[in-house]
Amino acid sequence: MSMDGIAIGLDIGGTNLRVAQVTYRGEVLKRTRRETSQDIVKDIIESIDELITEDTVGIGIGIAGVVDSTSGVVKRSPNLSQAEGIDLKSILSDKYNLPIRIDNDANAATLGERFVGAGRRFEDFVMLTLGTGIGGGVVINGALLKTASELGHITVEANGKKCLCPNSGCLEAYASGRAIVSDVIDQLEKGADSLLKDCCEGNIYKITPEDVYNYALEGDTLARETLKNAGKYLGIGIASLVNIFSPQAVIIGGGLTGAWDILVREAIREANKRAFPELIENVEILPAQLADNAGVVGAASLVLYSSEAK
Amino acid sequence: MSMDGIAIGLDIGGTNLRVAQVTYRGEVLKRTRRETSQDIVKDIIESIDELITEDTVGIGIGIAGVVDSTSGVVKRSPNLSQAEGIDLKSILSDKYNLPIRIDNDANAATLGERFVGAGRRFEDFVMLTLGTGIGGGVVINGALLKTASELGHITVEANGKKCLCPNSGCLEAYASGRAIVSDVIDQLEKGADSLLKDCCEGNIYKITPEDVYNYALEGDTLARETLKNAGKYLGIGIASLVNIFSPQAVIIGGGLTGAWDILVREAIREANKRAFPELIENVEILPAQLADNAGVVGAASLVLYSSEAK
Repeated sequence: MSMDGIAIGLDIGGTNLRVAQVTYRGEVLKRTRRETSQDIVKDIIESIDELITEDTVGIGIGIAGVVDSTSGVVKRSPNLSQAEGIDLKSILSDKYNLPIRIDNDANAATLGERFVGAGRRFEDFVMLTLGTGIGGGVVINGALLKTASELGHITVEANGKKCLCPNSGCLEAYASGRAIVSDVIDQLEKGADSLLKDCCEGNIYKITPEDVYNYALEGDTLARETLKNAGKYLGIGIASLVNIFSPQAVIIGGGLTGAWDILVREAIREANKRAFPELIENVEILPAQLADNAGVVGAASLVLYSSEAK
Repeated sequence: MSMDGIAIGLDIGGTNLRVAQVTYRGEVLKRTRRETSQDIVKDIIESIDELITEDTVGIGIGIAGVVDSTSGVVKRSPNLSQAEGIDLKSILSDKYNLPIRIDNDANAATLGERFVGAGRRFEDFVMLTLGTGIGGGVVINGALLKTASELGHITVEANGKKCLCPNSGCLEAYASGRAIVSDVIDQLEKGADSLLKDCCEGNIYKITPEDVYNYALEGDTLARETLKNAGKYLGIGIASLVNIFSPQAVIIGGGLTGAWDILVREAIREANKRAFPELIENVEILPAQLADNAGVVGAASLVLYSSEAK
């Protein structure tokens, strides 16, 4: 296969559709971004048509939700319900006559890290993306595990907080950006003493995870304790994943990695207390590298990278 | 490769060493059993020498503990500490000049189910072995996942009961045979009213999981509630595993499968409430088939079965 081609990578989140031309070296040539409409198929096709070239070897799509990567059908996508049930793979195969690969966005980002990011050094790693929710992906023997890998939805508290999924006590309900903000607001509503009361011109319902981190750095106790508590739960989840997957590394990406020094440090401490010592002793816990491009490069890697093509 | 050969399968538990000749059809020809001594290498070699023939194509070993299946070194084996750190693979390779495969006993049993048991129908399944502790294994795309798969050591209660491992709140601390007996004894010591007080000639410290199941069938409330509580936690664990692995089936083996009607039924109910609906809706939860031979057939399958040789 020529190494000159590009893949089109599409990262389809709740409200944004990001698309890029990605080379075999993982470089982004051109990229676009638009808001998603109710006609998601039209959005996708228009975006591809803008960027497709004669050198395009395939189209990769990472989409938030539960995807059957074999059939290419989006089974459930809470933030993008207009995509549910659509057989994107067939539609795009018919139109472009190119290989089409579709997977969950966190799985795609995981493969992107393996392709040109922090996962290049590891044959076996677990990736967690900490954003509004928590996504995940797993690489074993250099290849993406073809499973749902909904790592944010493992139970950490049997009778715990209600999650947005049917479960209670999910990791996501304790260690996601949404959980951190929700905890802070709960405490402020109960009258907790914190500088965060004055955040966002006094509208505490506009507090973001970044605000919590910034106030924590300034020494605010509520902000710091909330992040540490989320980090503790993140560590509990990491310990379970280490006991399951015995990985060489745990790679952490997503918006919350900004809070590494408080959140992830606490998680590492907790995970080391809990996991099998002989399994965790050599595990590297490190940040993802692809940052803003993780979504589109990950999606393109579904086409460009395979464990055979190392 | 000729299909006439046999493999020697060794199942090395805490106190027993079971060894068998196993054919490519998974049949057990001859088998032996002995107690393990402090000289585990001598035990193993004597057992192999008893059963090895000219048709032997390899030797497979399933051993309780954490095993590095690549190097063949037993990293930790709490009930068989004399095996820790021994490079069994090199020792046996040198002596027999045959392929030697070593893995955790639960991983071996999982591959055995895939080879000639309940896993034959499934490309993707999770196996849980419910005994004194809880072991596990995972098959994806028809092949055993080469990971620790310590599925009994995922956290289900963040601040829960102390496990024998460094963690607290492990699935094993709530849903294993040891946990069930320990729960019953705790309740009896607190004066709970139960027919189990008269079990084992009044020595409640001799109660077994089978006793608890038998009393539950006779209508004893404490026995029944204890099993249902363990089943609830088992279901919580299963839901997490379904969200991670999106399997076609969950296969349950080990001594506790006798309590299926109470324990596992409750687990299925709980798992269905908690897992992603689109992931669990088609999951079959069913008992393992290999029963007494699971250990030796599983160990032999490490040699006899590969995903390529379907």
